[in-house]
Amino acid sequence: MKLAIYGYGNVGKGVEFACMQNKDVELVGIFTRRDASEVKSPFNTKVFSTSNVKDFKDKIDVLIICGGSASELPNMTPELAKDFNVVDSFDTHAKIPEHFEKVDKVAKANNHIALISCGWDPGMFSLNRLYANAILPNGKDYTFWGRGVSQGHSDAIRHIEGVVDARQYTVPVSDVVERIKHGETPELTTRQKHIRECYVVVKEGADKKKIEEQIKTMPNYFADYDTTVTFIDKEEMEKNHKEMPHGGFVIRTGTTGANDTHKHTISYNLKLDSNPEFTAAALIAFARAIKKMHDGGENGCVTVFDIRPRDLMPISNEELRKKML
Amino acid sequence: MKLAIYGYGNVGKGVEFACMQNKDVELVGIFTRRDASEVKSPFNTKVFSTSNVKDFKDKIDVLIICGGSASELPNMTPELAKDFNVVDSFDTHAKIPEHFEKVDKVAKANNHIALISCGWDPGMFSLNRLYANAILPNGKDYTFWGRGVSQGHSDAIRHIEGVVDARQYTVPVSDVVERIKHGETPELTTRQKHIRECYVVVKEGADKKKIEEQIKTMPNYFADYDTTVTFIDKEEMEKNHKEMPHGGFVIRTGTTGANDTHKHTISYNLKLDSNPEFTAAALIAFARAIKKMHDGGENGCVTVFDIRPRDLMPISNEELRKKML
Repeated sequence: MKLAIYGYGNVGKGVEFACMQNKDVELVGIFTRRDASEVKSPFNTKVFSTSNVKDFKDKIDVLIICGGSASELPNMTPELAKDFNVVDSFDTHAKIPEHFEKVDKVAKANNHIALISCGWDPGMFSLNRLYANAILPNGKDYTFWGRGVSQGHSDAIRHIEGVVDARQYTVPVSDVVERIKHGETPELTTRQKHIRECYVVVKEGADKKKIEEQIKTMPNYFADYDTTVTFIDKEEMEKNHKEMPHGGFVIRTGTTGANDTHKHTISYNLKLDSNPEFTAAALIAFARAIKKMHDGGENGCVTVFDIRPRDLMPISNEELRKKML
Repeated sequence: MKLAIYGYGNVGKGVEFACMQNKDVELVGIFTRRDASEVKSPFNTKVFSTSNVKDFKDKIDVLIICGGSASELPNMTPELAKDFNVVDSFDTHAKIPEHFEKVDKVAKANNHIALISCGWDPGMFSLNRLYANAILPNGKDYTFWGRGVSQGHSDAIRHIEGVVDARQYTVPVSDVVERIKHGETPELTTRQKHIRECYVVVKEGADKKKIEEQIKTMPNYFADYDTTVTFIDKEEMEKNHKEMPHGGFVIRTGTTGANDTHKHTISYNLKLDSNPEFTAAALIAFARAIKKMHDGGENGCVTVFDIRPRDLMPISNEELRKKML
């Protein structure tokens, strides 16, 4: 299948790496918003300007859109779905219905297929919520995120006066996770589920006490959590905090049988060294399904819920049944 | 949707309970191989003889076949697929391709759809192997079973001279599971993955030492494992070992990025108080999808790999995207 990357940030670079691991992928090119002549690919993939993307209509099976959910994807995905089958990782949960409608209209009108909100949450976590709910209708769901870097929370700290750099880790409260994995179904407050760990580099002479206070009391971001603030220097930030790990748990506990005597716990856990590279790897697998669905005559906007699992794999259905069922 | 149960053993009874938890299900009846007048349902479901099942052609959307994989399902499923859409839980992994071919031929010829090998392994474990492999092509898979009762191993012990009753628990070696969940990728022998715990009731005066020896050296079943044998009396067997718990782990660890520097671990874990009731709950969710697929014009034999996740749920796609994505 012929893929191309639109947007060459962390996820876009991850997609390029993932393309190299999948033998059925031909990477046609990378589209960048920067000056294409200045962008170098480690695999010598051809780099083009995003302004030339329309020249590639009919030369790409699926275009992988690697943009930000806040300001880029809401316009990018519908626009590109005019000329291409596309996949994006739109992750603003509350705005998914609106994004879906916009993309669906364009994709249908142009006989393309567009997968939105692919990755791990939304994505693999969503699928696990669905499967667990379908099997255990009488139950309770939990989602925990982390240990992992939250870009939004890190950015919020960076906006405080006197802060040079910051990294925020979301950390699930481990003994609560263990209790739930063993079948308990507690009602939990925000504070009981996650801790927020902040590592902060400040300007010389900055008022650390005041900065710590500003972080810990920041509404929406930190006020409802147990937050720790650790001041470190630039070197330590560079050495110990440049990676982007993430992950988490989706757990559902439910009951079956006479008088609900039997309890069942379904847990799905991700431990990811690199959030963007795992997201990228998921985008490629689902792009494969999008090509197959388009070849089969489907169009419109879809999500991971609409994809037959078999279509994610590059081997035949017979082989799949033999090897993985 | 109108469902019926064919075979009223542990799984069949579990299906009946699960039907009560799903508001979109109308349970038309139970078909038993015993004398129907002697079989009582706790919910007063109508009970019929299996010999009358053909009278219900066109009155049932999906027939849930609850038979054994060794001698029943290989004939039952193809036979019943002539007149009904069916779901079974055929779990002899090595014989799935053969079973698939037989069922597919009949289902296609009669315009029915038949889902085989549904449950948790094959079933949810298979789906998790597939998703993890699709996302991380460069990685290593592990499947662990337990802690749970293995019927086959329990039966094998019961056949030993002097044994009155036996229960065998398959137990994953927990520190190995922990190491793998944390990203290690060891090569493991059979012995290193699972322990076999046996609880055995013997006849008065039986030679316990000899029985223990016979169990521990039994080829295929126990010889390759660290096996413990505990002799107990009938009362303790009844009190502590009458439940049928099971579960296990599917774990895949893979790498991405430049020089495979980033490691990712995907783990799926089931802890089930009742193996047959969880299997039954899965059968109902997938039967829902089978009805939708048949209504949409599909036919032939399918597996969990062919089912769109959205079709498992009784709510609209809009609601699904809003609530679970």
